[in-house]
Amino acid sequence: MRDIEFEESKYIELMRQKFIDAAQRFDFNFMEPSPLELLSTLEAKSGPSISNETYSFTDKGGRMIGLRFDLTVGLSRFVSQRRELKMPTKFASFGGVWRYDEPQFGRYRYFHQWDVEIFGSFSNEADSEIIEFVYKFLENLGLEVVVEINHRQIVERFLREKLGISAISTIGEMLRAVDKLSKKKPQQIYEEYQGKLNLSKLRQLIEFSNFKGEPEDCPDINILETFEGWKSTLEIFDSLKSRGVKNVQLNLGVVRGLDYYSGLVFEVFDPSTAIGALVGGGRYDKLTEIFGRKDIGTTGAAGGVERILSAMRNHNLMKLKSKPLVYVVYSSENVKNYAIRIVSDLRTSGYTTDYDFQGRRIDKQINEAISRGASAIIVVDQDEIKNQIVTIRNSEGETSKHKITDLIKKMDEVLTLC
Amino acid sequence: MRDIEFEESKYIELMRQKFIDAAQRFDFNFMEPSPLELLSTLEAKSGPSISNETYSFTDKGGRMIGLRFDLTVGLSRFVSQRRELKMPTKFASFGGVWRYDEPQFGRYRYFHQWDVEIFGSFSNEADSEIIEFVYKFLENLGLEVVVEINHRQIVERFLREKLGISAISTIGEMLRAVDKLSKKKPQQIYEEYQGKLNLSKLRQLIEFSNFKGEPEDCPDINILETFEGWKSTLEIFDSLKSRGVKNVQLNLGVVRGLDYYSGLVFEVFDPSTAIGALVGGGRYDKLTEIFGRKDIGTTGAAGGVERILSAMRNHNLMKLKSKPLVYVVYSSENVKNYAIRIVSDLRTSGYTTDYDFQGRRIDKQINEAISRGASAIIVVDQDEIKNQIVTIRNSEGETSKHKITDLIKKMDEVLTLC
Repeated sequence: MRDIEFEESKYIELMRQKFIDAAQRFDFNFMEPSPLELLSTLEAKSGPSISNETYSFTDKGGRMIGLRFDLTVGLSRFVSQRRELKMPTKFASFGGVWRYDEPQFGRYRYFHQWDVEIFGSFSNEADSEIIEFVYKFLENLGLEVVVEINHRQIVERFLREKLGISAISTIGEMLRAVDKLSKKKPQQIYEEYQGKLNLSKLRQLIEFSNFKGEPEDCPDINILETFEGWKSTLEIFDSLKSRGVKNVQLNLGVVRGLDYYSGLVFEVFDPSTAIGALVGGGRYDKLTEIFGRKDIGTTGAAGGVERILSAMRNHNLMKLKSKPLVYVVYSSENVKNYAIRIVSDLRTSGYTTDYDFQGRRIDKQINEAISRGASAIIVVDQDEIKNQIVTIRNSEGETSKHKITDLIKKMDEVLTLC
Repeated sequence: MRDIEFEESKYIELMRQKFIDAAQRFDFNFMEPSPLELLSTLEAKSGPSISNETYSFTDKGGRMIGLRFDLTVGLSRFVSQRRELKMPTKFASFGGVWRYDEPQFGRYRYFHQWDVEIFGSFSNEADSEIIEFVYKFLENLGLEVVVEINHRQIVERFLREKLGISAISTIGEMLRAVDKLSKKKPQQIYEEYQGKLNLSKLRQLIEFSNFKGEPEDCPDINILETFEGWKSTLEIFDSLKSRGVKNVQLNLGVVRGLDYYSGLVFEVFDPSTAIGALVGGGRYDKLTEIFGRKDIGTTGAAGGVERILSAMRNHNLMKLKSKPLVYVVYSSENVKNYAIRIVSDLRTSGYTTDYDFQGRRIDKQINEAISRGASAIIVVDQDEIKNQIVTIRNSEGETSKHKITDLIKKMDEVLTLC
């Protein structure tokens, strides 16, 4: 059970707003895929780890149901079903997802993701557009990130042509082993896969994967140039330059854990926050293929909201402007209804306003106002109200008297001063 | 499975924003209670109907879990646990909820609610504040609603003192029978409860409940005046007048289906939309008592987002301002990167901008722009771009030529004209 409390809930809301604003600029359509899916649909996005992490149950109709673990599967299922949609089409979504794994730092069982996907295009420009969105969105939040790019075809070619591995299941196992390198040392990986994979080949793959930098600096560039996927990778690098995306690197070790990626894969890091990738994505034509649509090549990215917030916190980028509070106090029950009417008018005019509905003594009301950091206290006094007058006390403790009819006008002055 | 599609997703988002804005004016705190709860927690809010409607399952740790069916239970559980919270305290929440019932018009298995609650006050002013919030929020959306108020103590006193019923389970059954009157005719209710309840007493209760209007016009006012709850009801009517809340009626038939209400109950209707209550609420001190807190009397309201949207649609109040689209086309692959850079700059400046990453012929690109209702088309031509010039075509089809450096400045002019 994870409740999203006060501050956290405001930050997630802020992130949601900023995401919607950014996605609008790129003309993404918005939708929210169902939180509940048939388990068979979720398992289409396989990778055995995901199956273990899914909250699943049998519903009253006897169907196996799971809670969505990301927004990608639902979006892909939805778009695949909608044959009337004109392609290419761009979708964005923001919502909660569930993973039934061991909670770890910066990771929860219930957390939020945003997701952008382009369906119906096999063009490298679609991949570049996704990365541009991610980069600009994070840049706009104040984060200076590094984008690490790779191509599944490159790694798979290496496995097939250089290591002579052809079994799809072994290729998948090999890729997942490399994916674990971000969390474990090579030695630990070798121990884990002892007897399960050919360790000599795994070692060669891990050595091959161990490059991060400009494509032209890669020692294996002669091999890479012969691989499918290399030309696409260079085109994406080129396009990203035109788009003003900085800090892009080739990282042959980025493979992403899931089986369904088929082309570009990438991860985005904040170098000074050791929390794992903030965003991950790539091309996954295979998933929409599973949903019966060979025709809608798909590329996209998913960002972890709580992780991005964590990085922002790390850089002191988390600033919430809270609205100033106006607090109305009253000298006795007789004038309470006057006070309530003033509260009501102030709220209607857009001011965050509160008062004490408990009917306590006025000094207690004033203490309450001060302890809640009120920027202005309005005092409704039995004697003054006869003449339609109230007292405003500002945050410095200075008081002034005003006609009720001038109150709203006066408030702006008092609050801009504070 | 319910996907929230395009338009609907934008409207829900708009409602979320308006709700947050309104709740801020009333200085509510925000949070989101966990979507998953222990089933035992959800069942605390009983009413047998709710138990049947809960999506529940056994998790991998063998615990019985349910998906939240409202936000009230989670908020109450949360606040009850937090003994450090200063009382009274006000909470607001907005989120998806799940009910495993037969879908019906305006009702889904997955839908959205907003929720406002005041914890820690037994004052009638807290009840009035909740109703004021609901009324003003809906008024602000353009809805002219009727608020129908009742008090559980009044109906329970009638059952105990006039009909001589003392068994809590029978009182609960009787109340649920009355609650069904909004959907069924009395005759159907009598048939349904034949052999289960004393029909003569049920008939007397239904006749007693059959009053809607000003409190002073109630034919049973002499009886009512002797009941606990009557004075509170009149005080709430009085306070609502001070607060500018209109269209408030006493409706002795409003009892709400759930067992845990203990004082004020109310429902809010749009008289010209036959879709049931848009908002319901009341005082439920008993629920926080179940969570071990006798000290935090609680009152609140929950609104059905999809229902409110339905009412707004009915009154033609649904207006989404979509941002104008700028579409950039290019004459050949050679100048594609110029086009992409212009797209990127426009997006950075806040314009909703798109282009064709498929690399089709320019006439197809222009057709795409027109079919998507672009407010401006920017033409990047191989010959003109040499001189740093592009053509802008407005929505009337008029064209003009501009320096790239003037483009952003020019866009505002072009778009405000359309």
